[in-house]
Amino acid sequence: MAELPPKAKGFIDWYLAAVDAANLTDKRYPVKGMNVWTPYGFLARRNLDAVMIRAIEGTGSQPVEFPALIPNTEFQKEKEHIKGFDAQVYWVTRGGATPLDVELVLRPTSETAMYPVFALWVRSHRDLPLNVYQIVNIFRYETKTTRPFIRVREIHFLEEHSCQVDEAAAAERVRSNVAAFGVMAHDFALPFAAVRRPEWDKFPGAHYSVAFDIPVGEARTLQIGTAHHYRENFSGPYGIKYEASDGSTKLVHQTTFGLSERLIGAIVAVHGDDKGVVFPSAIAPYQVVVIPIAGGKSAAPPIDAARTIAERLTARGLRVHLDDGPDRPGAKYYHWEGAGVPLRLEVGPREAAKGEATCVNRLGERSTVGADQFEATVLARLAAYDDELRARATERFRAAFEIASSLDELKSSTHVRVVAWCGDEACGHRVEEAIDGALLGVPELPLPLRLPPPGRCIACASEKPVQWALAGRPL
Amino acid sequence: MAELPPKAKGFIDWYLAAVDAANLTDKRYPVKGMNVWTPYGFLARRNLDAVMIRAIEGTGSQPVEFPALIPNTEFQKEKEHIKGFDAQVYWVTRGGATPLDVELVLRPTSETAMYPVFALWVRSHRDLPLNVYQIVNIFRYETKTTRPFIRVREIHFLEEHSCQVDEAAAAERVRSNVAAFGVMAHDFALPFAAVRRPEWDKFPGAHYSVAFDIPVGEARTLQIGTAHHYRENFSGPYGIKYEASDGSTKLVHQTTFGLSERLIGAIVAVHGDDKGVVFPSAIAPYQVVVIPIAGGKSAAPPIDAARTIAERLTARGLRVHLDDGPDRPGAKYYHWEGAGVPLRLEVGPREAAKGEATCVNRLGERSTVGADQFEATVLARLAAYDDELRARATERFRAAFEIASSLDELKSSTHVRVVAWCGDEACGHRVEEAIDGALLGVPELPLPLRLPPPGRCIACASEKPVQWALAGRPL
Repeated sequence: MAELPPKAKGFIDWYLAAVDAANLTDKRYPVKGMNVWTPYGFLARRNLDAVMIRAIEGTGSQPVEFPALIPNTEFQKEKEHIKGFDAQVYWVTRGGATPLDVELVLRPTSETAMYPVFALWVRSHRDLPLNVYQIVNIFRYETKTTRPFIRVREIHFLEEHSCQVDEAAAAERVRSNVAAFGVMAHDFALPFAAVRRPEWDKFPGAHYSVAFDIPVGEARTLQIGTAHHYRENFSGPYGIKYEASDGSTKLVHQTTFGLSERLIGAIVAVHGDDKGVVFPSAIAPYQVVVIPIAGGKSAAPPIDAARTIAERLTARGLRVHLDDGPDRPGAKYYHWEGAGVPLRLEVGPREAAKGEATCVNRLGERSTVGADQFEATVLARLAAYDDELRARATERFRAAFEIASSLDELKSSTHVRVVAWCGDEACGHRVEEAIDGALLGVPELPLPLRLPPPGRCIACASEKPVQWALAGRPL
Repeated sequence: MAELPPKAKGFIDWYLAAVDAANLTDKRYPVKGMNVWTPYGFLARRNLDAVMIRAIEGTGSQPVEFPALIPNTEFQKEKEHIKGFDAQVYWVTRGGATPLDVELVLRPTSETAMYPVFALWVRSHRDLPLNVYQIVNIFRYETKTTRPFIRVREIHFLEEHSCQVDEAAAAERVRSNVAAFGVMAHDFALPFAAVRRPEWDKFPGAHYSVAFDIPVGEARTLQIGTAHHYRENFSGPYGIKYEASDGSTKLVHQTTFGLSERLIGAIVAVHGDDKGVVFPSAIAPYQVVVIPIAGGKSAAPPIDAARTIAERLTARGLRVHLDDGPDRPGAKYYHWEGAGVPLRLEVGPREAAKGEATCVNRLGERSTVGADQFEATVLARLAAYDDELRARATERFRAAFEIASSLDELKSSTHVRVVAWCGDEACGHRVEEAIDGALLGVPELPLPLRLPPPGRCIACASEKPVQWALAGRPL
């Protein structure tokens, strides 16, 4: 049991060690950037999926699944889009020993798989809106350094694709996606910034892109999701048209909403500490670990009492693990802390006799859970733990931002920067050069920061209307 | 709304039309044999997955997920296995414009993806048994005619892989898989035969294979799952070894268990009728459809009463759809019958006034659900419906088999045949020639048929010990 390197000393080293110690993934699969979901990591992912499914189906989206292989003929139809993905797709060129007549792309995202079929599904205004999503794996021939969950070559991915009657309805769908992400982020205990990416950094083929960013590590930022307005950019080439109520034929306006396993990386990155991973209860593979403790060297631990507690909590719908293995209690505490389990219930002979347990949460808060209202008390402790996790994350989120008033201040920045920006591309690029990173964009939702009026543009000092924008160095 | 072709007149035509009418899949995707899971089909699949997950996790299997791409170097390690799959794998040969150093196979099954990693996971007898499963899509470059769910090129697949201490423990795991399939099949309302495939028809690389077969259509059979004992056939080449408690190093014995979306095809094939699909309640996307009915031409249908019923049943955990659309009631009945919904609740003004509903199940049985104990009554009706579905399927299953006493009787058989077989391969091939099909194998579990002692081998009439075996024409 090696100690983790301290998080404050170097984020990436800590992150890699924390992911390994919790055994969330196995990186030893013999293809770089394609990792194995271990049982423990898979359970976290299943919980992540459940949170996403609940939120997105709550907005009227229906599940579908389209094939993983896309014929090159369909893939080539939207020029901007294909330019953005050409260099990073995997090509299937043979079936058995036979060269394929039409080469197939392993989906890097599913616009070009879905839209030929949407053209068949959408006929009339009565077929709209069409809001469908799928949770699948996508594939990108990534040339940058890969990192578990954060940058991999096979990516667990949620993608919603929608068709709307017009531009305004599509803009409303994007807002609804941003709101749905807020619902999920509450469960992840992740404060985030929703920003509209500048023109030069939008998704290939999009009219505009809204991205969700969080601060991580040493003043870096991590994009943890996106929603895009496509206008008619894809419906034109793919012929997705409908008969409007006035009898005219119109192209649909489209949107997409994308989230991925990177959210697990974000949860580890934001909540983890020098002991390892810290899971919010919605994502934790086990929400409670119950550990029976012997009263003395030769005494047997009260396993039956511990099992009863585990069974009662399981019956209340909690995910509970009874650790009745041979290791010393200290070793178990260490292991389950590193694995991020929200609540540890210790049951010694005294607790067993009274029907109680000692509760220690992953933030180190200790309390007794009495026999009376036992299950309800554990549920309340779990909710209080999530609230505290959220409060701490919000505090760190706020502290991660700092206003910069000059381009000079952006250099070797120890914060994500808030800058006044006139909206000109040239000024945006000067900000990016100064911070050696990206102008992330203008917030779509109010940030949880107190900001004065923005004043003049940080780059050109022009008197044109300026807005607060975020600038940072994406991980 | 075209009528379906009668099931009795031609199984495949009926099957294709029933799947289309229920809108379970869209075959118009521009790659042959790769179909789109529509929202309705996807919901059936989600329910199928839930049944499989519950049963398999009940036997101590843990979820994992391994990458979809397998390096050729790993894929080549087990000779029999690779011979069995070489002609039907998709090859990934380029990333972007770059030819890959090591070509990648899109998994046709995951032995060769998992076992190099199992060699790292298994060290000691304390790591055994290792029972893990994944639900993923697999890919086969299928050259036969493709059929929705039954034979496709991208296949939704459950695969369990296990490592055991020795041959006996592996045989026990296979038995446990067969038992788990029995638990699932109860929910699917599918009677099945579990047979040990003859030597010449086992899975490539297996020591032996147990397959689950059902009779479908015109005396055809459909394999709807398999469990295999691999002995040390893979653990040798992949080096999956452990230190036994006596300090010696041993190879593990392995097993696998495979199920797929073909189960949805089987459910449609077995339960469906001339009106369309018939779903058991565990799989039905909607278990109940509630239809408000107007009292007269100008009266409004009691939508509020219908919605209240739908909400109350949803709160009890049922999957309920309220159809308050503009179509005539008759058109709605027709649609939801074709879609296989188990229970239809009709709410007219009289029923609404009394808090009742008229219940019609998908087998045509009509009853009234009174206001008192409304939800409990609906749950009871659903359970009775499943029982009746199971009873009818079992009756048809029994009627599908017939003993054949001579090779001549096997020709142009209108039944799946039960034959006495001495176990010789030559005799097996004579049976296969006569029936123009396959000797499916010897039952592992008692069939629900009354059979006399088997007598002499149907082919050689030898006095050697013979067993009842099944022979049929696989679809």
